[in-house]
Amino acid sequence: MNPNIPPSTIRRLSTYLRMLDVEVAVGTANISSARLSRLSGFSAPQVRRDLAYFGSFGKRGVGYSVGRLREELRAILGTDQPRNITMVGVGNLGRALLAYKGFDRHGTRFTVAFDTDARKIGSKVAGVPVKPLSDVERLVEEHGIELALITVPAAAAQDVVDSLVAAGIKAILNFAPRSLTAPKDVKVTNVDLAVEVEYLSYSLANG
Amino acid sequence: MNPNIPPSTIRRLSTYLRMLDVEVAVGTANISSARLSRLSGFSAPQVRRDLAYFGSFGKRGVGYSVGRLREELRAILGTDQPRNITMVGVGNLGRALLAYKGFDRHGTRFTVAFDTDARKIGSKVAGVPVKPLSDVERLVEEHGIELALITVPAAAAQDVVDSLVAAGIKAILNFAPRSLTAPKDVKVTNVDLAVEVEYLSYSLANG
Repeated sequence: MNPNIPPSTIRRLSTYLRMLDVEVAVGTANISSARLSRLSGFSAPQVRRDLAYFGSFGKRGVGYSVGRLREELRAILGTDQPRNITMVGVGNLGRALLAYKGFDRHGTRFTVAFDTDARKIGSKVAGVPVKPLSDVERLVEEHGIELALITVPAAAAQDVVDSLVAAGIKAILNFAPRSLTAPKDVKVTNVDLAVEVEYLSYSLANG
Repeated sequence: MNPNIPPSTIRRLSTYLRMLDVEVAVGTANISSARLSRLSGFSAPQVRRDLAYFGSFGKRGVGYSVGRLREELRAILGTDQPRNITMVGVGNLGRALLAYKGFDRHGTRFTVAFDTDARKIGSKVAGVPVKPLSDVERLVEEHGIELALITVPAAAAQDVVDSLVAAGIKAILNFAPRSLTAPKDVKVTNVDLAVEVEYLSYSLANG
């Protein structure tokens, strides 16, 4: 695998894959870069450049085989293998993300969630059992989980990360409103839902 | 205003602003680029480059005045003025976003939400009244709303955009899993929550 593929390209592949899923569902055999561009919102040259990274070349006048391109992208992204993930924090956002249909489209599924609130522990959210955070080490190992989402309050987030790291988690998607510290071999991505709203707000103010 | 400021810089300003809000709350007077780097997760040279776009220069050994820098960033991002926003779609994700504390930190607030489900219409979610989508044109004007978030199912999303555009909405943050068409003067940003999970999944698979 080429280690020089930019993260932005990987993220766009994820978007293309979503569009291909829809095309497969409606029985499309071939797709042009122009159509993949319209569906994804990225420019056609961008689409072609991104796919060329992986040696995928559409045929002139025919385009890409939808089925083959989809399998290729799934293999690249590693979403052709099922992967168990977990959610720490079962508040409003945690509940919404547990119920979000987008995550499970490529074999990624929540098998367990964690909280510290006794009223939530023992319940199920979108079919996912909520367990006490104190059991995280045992259950992460039992479920073979490497990837965790965090939606706890800012003040609790670093402690949660430390517990997850101790439990062997290797990748964290953080929705808590603060930056977090983790060892080098643990990947942490921060998602701030307000950033996009503020960006649009800026765009409105600046034409 | 310099029109050549990259969108990625604007998004980072939004993150810096969030960190400054915390610093103001705890009474910090000055902040170095090194500390702003640690808090935000971006490199110190990146922080300095971003702030230099706006003529903000920290003093050697003192750093930036927290209060002044915060006011400056708020003015740049246009978040020093209150702005009414709306949510279309009051399912799991819509409810979570309506309750999300991150949006209201800079005067952005939901004043009304829309749905087509009669069981939801007339209720309140996180204090925000849910109205029928058929009233969108009248209410968007009444509330002076320019920015909308969409969390409806993919199949309904384009119709919703068309209604919002007709109602005068100028910026849309789309969480529905499909790309949307709007006139050139309407800004549409797509948010796919699964992209980041797939990116981390890829990172795990590729070390």
